Amino acid sequence: MPTRDPKISPSVVRRLPIYLRHIQVLRGQGVERVSSQEMGNNLDLNPAQIRKDLASFGEFGKKGVGYEVSYLERKLRQILNLDRHIGVALIGAGHLGIALSNYARFQSERMTIDGLFDSDPQKIGAKIGHLTVEHVHDLETACQTRRMQIGIIAVPAIAAQGVCDALVKAQIRVILNFAPASLRIPRGVHLRNTDFTTELQSLAFYLADD
Amino acid sequence: MPTRDPKISPSVVRRLPIYLRHIQVLRGQGVERVSSQEMGNNLDLNPAQIRKDLASFGEFGKKGVGYEVSYLERKLRQILNLDRHIGVALIGAGHLGIALSNYARFQSERMTIDGLFDSDPQKIGAKIGHLTVEHVHDLETACQTRRMQIGIIAVPAIAAQGVCDALVKAQIRVILNFAPASLRIPRGVHLRNTDFTTELQSLAFYLADD
Repeated sequence: MPTRDPKISPSVVRRLPIYLRHIQVLRGQGVERVSSQEMGNNLDLNPAQIRKDLASFGEFGKKGVGYEVSYLERKLRQILNLDRHIGVALIGAGHLGIALSNYARFQSERMTIDGLFDSDPQKIGAKIGHLTVEHVHDLETACQTRRMQIGIIAVPAIAAQGVCDALVKAQIRVILNFAPASLRIPRGVHLRNTDFTTELQSLAFYLADD
Repeated sequence: MPTRDPKISPSVVRRLPIYLRHIQVLRGQGVERVSSQEMGNNLDLNPAQIRKDLASFGEFGKKGVGYEVSYLERKLRQILNLDRHIGVALIGAGHLGIALSNYARFQSERMTIDGLFDSDPQKIGAKIGHLTVEHVHDLETACQTRRMQIGIIAVPAIAAQGVCDALVKAQIRVILNFAPASLRIPRGVHLRNTDFTTELQSLAFYLADD
């Protein structure tokens, strides 16, 4: 019986793209079916965890038969809204913003950075890859006309709350924050803070193996 | 009875810095004891998960009494090796490398970027914050003399394997990779790939709430 949580845990959601990527690799190799055991071995995850995660969204696999690769890929794309184009607004054309927009050029066609914004007059109009830096004052209009749905904050900590408020005003409901700042958001907005410090701190654990 | 895994799962290790940060905030507020229930409420995690995670490392709390904040902080620091200085070598003085070294200046004194390396002759000698860009050829000597123990790869994908090999040769056993490349490492080296794409893809899940 599938567990159908009304509220899917963030850790489950974070694992879905990892499943999707693995399934895409398998499809590329011509694999048609995969068991949770095989997925678990490849992804260093508990097979029971994988079965439970996927069962939150419906009955995708059969006991003893496993998952059909192409069906699971389609379902994961649907669940993650990756079956359609998603426009991303990136705020901050400093070093981090430029690094992110370069990086994103390698990424899937379905999710693209469609606007790059800054408040520094010296940066407005500059070409960064295929993007031209726009003034953050134009964010709201741009988000509406270009239907951008995700905002990335890549500005200094001191400017982050202002940018966050501008994104919320521009009807952006999903925000990825790179600034080391604790942001206030209204209900209904989903904010994720990336955290370079936490990442490095958890890695320090492995120094013990030396 | 604590569960003592011989091999602690990576997901547990990733949660430890989150516990540490929360405990530090509590100590700052003068809180002396905290229950797993209170921690769970604050961190949006299952209290049973928190108890199980911490119990992997010993008996830190008492049933019905909770955890002693200062003791738990000290223990978490020990487990994460954050009770001593850790030097980090950063390779890549491009936009990402500069962003990371700026960002890291706000971080804890116990973990610092102690070397910034590149192979571009035009960048060698440049001052980035308190760091001077050094040639990647000097990485091995620098890691030994400055006892750097963690390596961060912030170079383009095409250069990442070469840098990874150089870090391994320099006896670095813990590597954080920002390049979108799949790196080969020998046994005994701990590699973590940060993945901007996976992060964005999992965020797209929340667009469904619109």
